Amino acid sequence: MSYLKFKKIIMSLPGPLPTVFDQVDKNKTKFIEVLREAVAIKSISTDVTCRDECTKMVLWTKKKLEALGATVELKNIGTHVIDGKTYPLPDVIVGYLGNDPKKKTTCIYGHLDVQPANLSDGWLTEPFELVEKDGKLFGRGSTDDKGPVLCWLHAIESYQNCGIDIPVNIKFVFEAMEESGSEGLDELLYDVLKPSGFFNDVDFVCISDNYWLGTTKPCITYGLRGMCYFFVEVECAAQDLHSGVMGGTVHESMADVVYLLNSLVDKDGKIIITNLYKEVAPIFDGEKEMYENIEFDPIEYKKSLGAHGLAHNGDKIQLLMYRWRYPSLSIHGIQGAVWEPGTKTVIPGKVIGKFSIRIVPDQEPEVIGKYVVDYLNAKWAERGSPNRMKAHMVHSGRPWTADPKHEHYAAAARATKHVFKIEPDMCREGGSIPVTISLQEASGKNVMLLPVGAGDDMAHSQNEKINVKNYIEGTKLLAAYLYEVGLLK
Amino acid sequence: MSYLKFKKIIMSLPGPLPTVFDQVDKNKTKFIEVLREAVAIKSISTDVTCRDECTKMVLWTKKKLEALGATVELKNIGTHVIDGKTYPLPDVIVGYLGNDPKKKTTCIYGHLDVQPANLSDGWLTEPFELVEKDGKLFGRGSTDDKGPVLCWLHAIESYQNCGIDIPVNIKFVFEAMEESGSEGLDELLYDVLKPSGFFNDVDFVCISDNYWLGTTKPCITYGLRGMCYFFVEVECAAQDLHSGVMGGTVHESMADVVYLLNSLVDKDGKIIITNLYKEVAPIFDGEKEMYENIEFDPIEYKKSLGAHGLAHNGDKIQLLMYRWRYPSLSIHGIQGAVWEPGTKTVIPGKVIGKFSIRIVPDQEPEVIGKYVVDYLNAKWAERGSPNRMKAHMVHSGRPWTADPKHEHYAAAARATKHVFKIEPDMCREGGSIPVTISLQEASGKNVMLLPVGAGDDMAHSQNEKINVKNYIEGTKLLAAYLYEVGLLK
Repeated sequence: MSYLKFKKIIMSLPGPLPTVFDQVDKNKTKFIEVLREAVAIKSISTDVTCRDECTKMVLWTKKKLEALGATVELKNIGTHVIDGKTYPLPDVIVGYLGNDPKKKTTCIYGHLDVQPANLSDGWLTEPFELVEKDGKLFGRGSTDDKGPVLCWLHAIESYQNCGIDIPVNIKFVFEAMEESGSEGLDELLYDVLKPSGFFNDVDFVCISDNYWLGTTKPCITYGLRGMCYFFVEVECAAQDLHSGVMGGTVHESMADVVYLLNSLVDKDGKIIITNLYKEVAPIFDGEKEMYENIEFDPIEYKKSLGAHGLAHNGDKIQLLMYRWRYPSLSIHGIQGAVWEPGTKTVIPGKVIGKFSIRIVPDQEPEVIGKYVVDYLNAKWAERGSPNRMKAHMVHSGRPWTADPKHEHYAAAARATKHVFKIEPDMCREGGSIPVTISLQEASGKNVMLLPVGAGDDMAHSQNEKINVKNYIEGTKLLAAYLYEVGLLK
Repeated sequence: MSYLKFKKIIMSLPGPLPTVFDQVDKNKTKFIEVLREAVAIKSISTDVTCRDECTKMVLWTKKKLEALGATVELKNIGTHVIDGKTYPLPDVIVGYLGNDPKKKTTCIYGHLDVQPANLSDGWLTEPFELVEKDGKLFGRGSTDDKGPVLCWLHAIESYQNCGIDIPVNIKFVFEAMEESGSEGLDELLYDVLKPSGFFNDVDFVCISDNYWLGTTKPCITYGLRGMCYFFVEVECAAQDLHSGVMGGTVHESMADVVYLLNSLVDKDGKIIITNLYKEVAPIFDGEKEMYENIEFDPIEYKKSLGAHGLAHNGDKIQLLMYRWRYPSLSIHGIQGAVWEPGTKTVIPGKVIGKFSIRIVPDQEPEVIGKYVVDYLNAKWAERGSPNRMKAHMVHSGRPWTADPKHEHYAAAARATKHVFKIEPDMCREGGSIPVTISLQEASGKNVMLLPVGAGDDMAHSQNEKINVKNYIEGTKLLAAYLYEVGLLK
């Protein structure tokens, strides 16, 4: 790129953005170092032994926000019980920066906790050490969601470093239990923050906790699937048995659970649970065409997963629809059975098959939960095993959609063009972020998901990463978002 | 029991046995303390991080044998490779006590390693701390096989403490890799010990590494099932995927592996793999009647397992036949999938289904291995999944039977009567102790399994235990065995 052309693009940015973007670029190394600090904190919310690290991460973030001049409160959200023991939930950060009545107010949400990660799971580097390689920053939480949370903080900092007034009032809700179903958060939003008037002056809600559809083109997300998570427990004996000594004399729990799990989906991933597709919203006129225009390359997608084949014969529209607007069922694993390397020879006494269904409009978790449990009970009756079986839904979240034609989305689209010089795709996503619905209900305002990470970031997987480019340009995107929202009347 | 009656039984014992038995009783507390020491050593052979503990257990036992006056050698049996890394195998203890040409020589085998055990598996007490409760000694290895090994040592010690000459020459083979398929032992037996003449003067081989059929009546074991252990690996992606983001677009490895595992056995445990029963020896005349006479109470058995129902409608003969003379298939678990408590939401990228088949006369592992792999390959072709699948047999052992009418068995039956005042049942067993065949082949002599533990000892399971009574009377049994074998011409 010639200097002249470079200059031209910079000059075409409105208001304070050239200065702010320049400031972001200058601080690239520093921003990466801050992410390194965050990744090093093992804030795994699903592992109670890491609860102190979750608290540490909350306090670390509080300090950062206070350094930006934000007013911050730690909200106690009580305790929860795991395996009969009571544990305190990590506090939620609630706060604000600016309260100018002439400005719009946007409420941003992010989470500070992460999924479990072990080197032995297949990570190529220590999961809790940020490692930069080939323009990628590997580490647990780098993209989900510590990186994007820091993009917000660094966007604000970049305005301040240039002495430019933040164009909007910002409210914060940062929690550390998202990966554990945001436990305790709904009560805080509905029963504490809403009654206290926290949302009264909020105009928009923006969440950066998802990903571009692909790896090169930005998008804005207006829909998410919900989720119903199920346990199917089978017990054949009071404890594990020696497969040589007892094998052949009991109805084995593993055979039963494998039978039940095998009754859920066909070989192409079609869910065969009775009534499961009954409430799925019909395809509206023009819906298929909408998917056609989205930039999504199935071949590239397949490559990014290292998959040996894609469902639906790799058809682009079908793949998008099955990620976003149709339910899918995944069998996650079996607790209580042999999982270690080696050749252990037990008959597991009690096993818990685990699977979840991503649900879509107009499916309701309670209804789906009943379909699944009824179906498994019927399959169990057919089986005729003397063992004990219990199928139940352990948690769930509803699907979410918002209006992508709202002015809030248009502002974010303009912000995207300032950074990436391209119109973003309006997308939905297959994952679940239950807080999206809660924030929509508690605030009564338009909610938007504005992703920073790329589609191959591998959140929840081994070798999670965020591209240096996404991390830095994402900071600019959120800075531009604040600017564009500030212009809304 | 009146003193007179007690006296009478004692008096009816032949030779030195009253004195030796008395000595065993007197040392009960001390013998339990020695077992406590042994259990505290975490000699888990399947866990390479415990390899030093295996070595520690070998050295601890060597010292004990030397204290008895035995001549002991540690035999290096080389290394093995796990996950691409090379580890030394623990040495095997080979030795002898006595070499009087006028005496018979019996070779005893035992193992010093144990199965894995964690409190979190469901143990009620620390697995590596011996805990005495209600006449039971709980701890990993208490019955499999540290307890029985110590019974041998204490039987010898009890003769010596009374100044009574041991009635036979004893040879020892004690290894610490039994729970990992006795790796390296066959090479030692066939290629080193046999050529060196170690077995030349051996008359009998006796192994105490199994259990009574029930909980009250002793038995002697003349048959074991073999084993073929299989891995069925399915890979759908290069790594785990987020079930929300990618669910619905890939053929999931878990659905495939569950389908394959579900094709192995029917609901009653009948193996549905093509040809699997083809080589099972036909039932001979009078075989069913033989089982009829064995003391085995299905109701008691069911209770001891904490099972909700038994296979074969709880029929005694069928249960015994399916434990001993028919193959059984157990699905052990799935490696690579979610196994932790909680609600992790991944699509596992690569999973390994693990199952094993206990094989019986006249089944050969290689033939069974081919049946299973061919069957799974055919099922896989039917499935039509684009994923990668590999089914293979990872290890195997042949079934074993010996002649229960041999004088060696008669001697052990007399020894049993000295201790328990009852004729033992002649039994087979469902488990596999591959070394039994190896020792039979290497020595060319009659091999016998002489169990000490009870049928509810829960080897390989949570809360493994040996009854104090079995541990102490078992020591007397092995002392009486040495006496009776010494009388054989």
